[in-house]
Amino acid sequence: MIERLDQLASCDAANDIAMERLQAARPVWVNVGVAADVIPEMGERMLLHAGPPIIWEDMSGPMRGAMIGAMLLEGWAKDESEAQKLGAGGEITFEPCHHHSAVGPMAGVISPSMPVNIIENRAPSGLGGGNRSYSNLNEGLGKVLRYGAYSPDVLERLRWMADELAPAMRKTVKAMEGGLDIKNIIARALHMGDEVHNRNLAATATLIRMIMPYLADSVSDTKVISRVANFIAGNDHFFLNLGMPAAKASLDAMANVEGCSLVSTMARNGTEFGIRVSGLGDRWFTAPAKHPAGLFFPGYGQEDANLDIGDSAIMETLGLGGFAMGGAPAIVQFVGGSTAEAIQATNEMYGITWTRSRDYTLPIFDFKGVPMGIDIRKVIETGIYPNINTGIAHRDAGIGQIGAGILRAPETPFQEAFEALTEKMSA
Amino acid sequence: MIERLDQLASCDAANDIAMERLQAARPVWVNVGVAADVIPEMGERMLLHAGPPIIWEDMSGPMRGAMIGAMLLEGWAKDESEAQKLGAGGEITFEPCHHHSAVGPMAGVISPSMPVNIIENRAPSGLGGGNRSYSNLNEGLGKVLRYGAYSPDVLERLRWMADELAPAMRKTVKAMEGGLDIKNIIARALHMGDEVHNRNLAATATLIRMIMPYLADSVSDTKVISRVANFIAGNDHFFLNLGMPAAKASLDAMANVEGCSLVSTMARNGTEFGIRVSGLGDRWFTAPAKHPAGLFFPGYGQEDANLDIGDSAIMETLGLGGFAMGGAPAIVQFVGGSTAEAIQATNEMYGITWTRSRDYTLPIFDFKGVPMGIDIRKVIETGIYPNINTGIAHRDAGIGQIGAGILRAPETPFQEAFEALTEKMSA
Repeated sequence: MIERLDQLASCDAANDIAMERLQAARPVWVNVGVAADVIPEMGERMLLHAGPPIIWEDMSGPMRGAMIGAMLLEGWAKDESEAQKLGAGGEITFEPCHHHSAVGPMAGVISPSMPVNIIENRAPSGLGGGNRSYSNLNEGLGKVLRYGAYSPDVLERLRWMADELAPAMRKTVKAMEGGLDIKNIIARALHMGDEVHNRNLAATATLIRMIMPYLADSVSDTKVISRVANFIAGNDHFFLNLGMPAAKASLDAMANVEGCSLVSTMARNGTEFGIRVSGLGDRWFTAPAKHPAGLFFPGYGQEDANLDIGDSAIMETLGLGGFAMGGAPAIVQFVGGSTAEAIQATNEMYGITWTRSRDYTLPIFDFKGVPMGIDIRKVIETGIYPNINTGIAHRDAGIGQIGAGILRAPETPFQEAFEALTEKMSA
Repeated sequence: MIERLDQLASCDAANDIAMERLQAARPVWVNVGVAADVIPEMGERMLLHAGPPIIWEDMSGPMRGAMIGAMLLEGWAKDESEAQKLGAGGEITFEPCHHHSAVGPMAGVISPSMPVNIIENRAPSGLGGGNRSYSNLNEGLGKVLRYGAYSPDVLERLRWMADELAPAMRKTVKAMEGGLDIKNIIARALHMGDEVHNRNLAATATLIRMIMPYLADSVSDTKVISRVANFIAGNDHFFLNLGMPAAKASLDAMANVEGCSLVSTMARNGTEFGIRVSGLGDRWFTAPAKHPAGLFFPGYGQEDANLDIGDSAIMETLGLGGFAMGGAPAIVQFVGGSTAEAIQATNEMYGITWTRSRDYTLPIFDFKGVPMGIDIRKVIETGIYPNINTGIAHRDAGIGQIGAGILRAPETPFQEAFEALTEKMSA
């Protein structure tokens, strides 16, 4: 292995270039649009999903549940059984969010009529800037589409989000001339005990603080202001669907750098876990997804849990979430573990990253930057695999979230990517 | 001294009673009123101030500045020189906020027409509950009355606060049936890196998150909603003037417990620092105030700084602020010092307190409660004096805030209180 690590020594220069782009990334919330109108190459009968590519037959319960919900929402099917047939029939195209500059938490299903947050990377174009990314809007916790629920109340909420929430958010963002700097909110939230993946309390509250004056300025109906404020204020994770596309826009800027050994994507579709590596382009390296170990809501346990699911590991790919949880010890009340374990996890992650973030810092680590730029060489050399924290969906369609937990990324994708990079570099 | 400590061994039982009341305290924001209408025994030509009692001649620059501003605001004087004469003339009664169930940050001046937050302690009456406390509304940072500024813009802001902000807040609080649980917000903010004295970022953002839906529901004019949201969202410390009376209402419930050796008040008037001890009733023990060492705004330095000032040390008296800063390491960017020093300070404070808070916990200390119940016996025994962090006012009237810093409480008041308690207990 030492020999192969030597072969990859030339990755260093490429990694520096890639990291300069990641450090320079400045994700800004610039608009709210409709998926069909704004997401690149979004087809008419296309549904985007979290993780690497997957076919209907291989989809887990919550992924199918979310697909069924999306087909009902779009009016393509009248009921569950019609949707099941349609899904299996081959008329619907299923593609990863990641193939469309998008990300979605958990099932991550984005259908054409859904509103999406639009993030623009305002870094100089010489540093990979100018790209955009997209995510749906966060529905809240519990019985929601992204956890595989599709009952009438779930769909009704999604319709309200498209009809009232999204237009209000669009006006609000437009009123903030130049948009809203998401990098700044993430940096502040890290100083307020969020790891910005499963703990978004400070980020969401800070977001509310920043947008409320503009919401009140740009929406004329106080009832709408009240309903929108109430919905956002009632959702601890509203910020997640801004943080994720912000991470995506940042990481897309460092993708496809020739010779770079840093991970540009980690994502799960509920069946498989997949990574992509900057120097290996758009190729996925996958393995069966694992079970998170965690804390369950009353009445549920490990046996009810689906495999790890969602694009939200984009937060860990950026150096947040399970990488930054030592700076956010209160997260252990939600995902399990102890303060000492949270600190230990972050310390371990410094061992597999290329550098530290310049802008995302952790006060308790003496304002050291979060571990950033997962280097597959270091992963293979140390045998330390990325630490991810995550929500847990019920394994059956139609139920929703049942807990939250922690896990390590599976080993195979990193090993195979390492082999592929060695091969490519020695070719 | 060991002999005298032995004499005070009987304080233990009283301290347990007092601490049970402090632990049980449940401060709730129940209303916004006008000082003259709601503050007990508020006289017509009375101005309340921070800290122990003080006469006009002894007042520091910022305290006089705030008094001048209040006299102009009330229309008692037409200009500064008239106000100076009036202040020196003996027609105005100056009394500590603390003598009227009230607290105010920095100069802490409350005049009859000012709007005040009303906090009620919803603990059972058997545990000292049912009492109320009061504070003015926070004006923001920089050139503001509480830092001794009194220019026309300062007074204009205060008038707007009385005319538009306070009525809007009153409607908002009324709309939250049962009021807003401030204990809950403090507990959450401690998990989000605030120490809730000089860092109120999370508390303020969480407050905004909680009140905005009610503000939008209860105020019909979107322009008012917008201005109010803008003012609160623009003020990192808006929560302070709710946190302080919450601490006051909590600590008043444990004041005047016979034989109790715990500190019920720490406060500074800009000239003197004073404490009161539960078992010694309303008697003040004072010493000259000290200079905080800290970080200064550009253009200012230690030589411009006033002595320590304000009722805000009520936060430390409750176990927050300088006692909890190990859980809020980002505070060192504002008040100076390092993460290690912040943790060390909190660890030291555990050495002088009777117990730990049940409800105010610090994730980074493995969810241990903050050090609570400053025991003058332990202070004397260890020689460790309370750690306080604070804003710093310019020494001259009319200028405002110039920095923030940290200091230890002076020794004399604790030593004299210890003597007095020994005397009382052996009588």
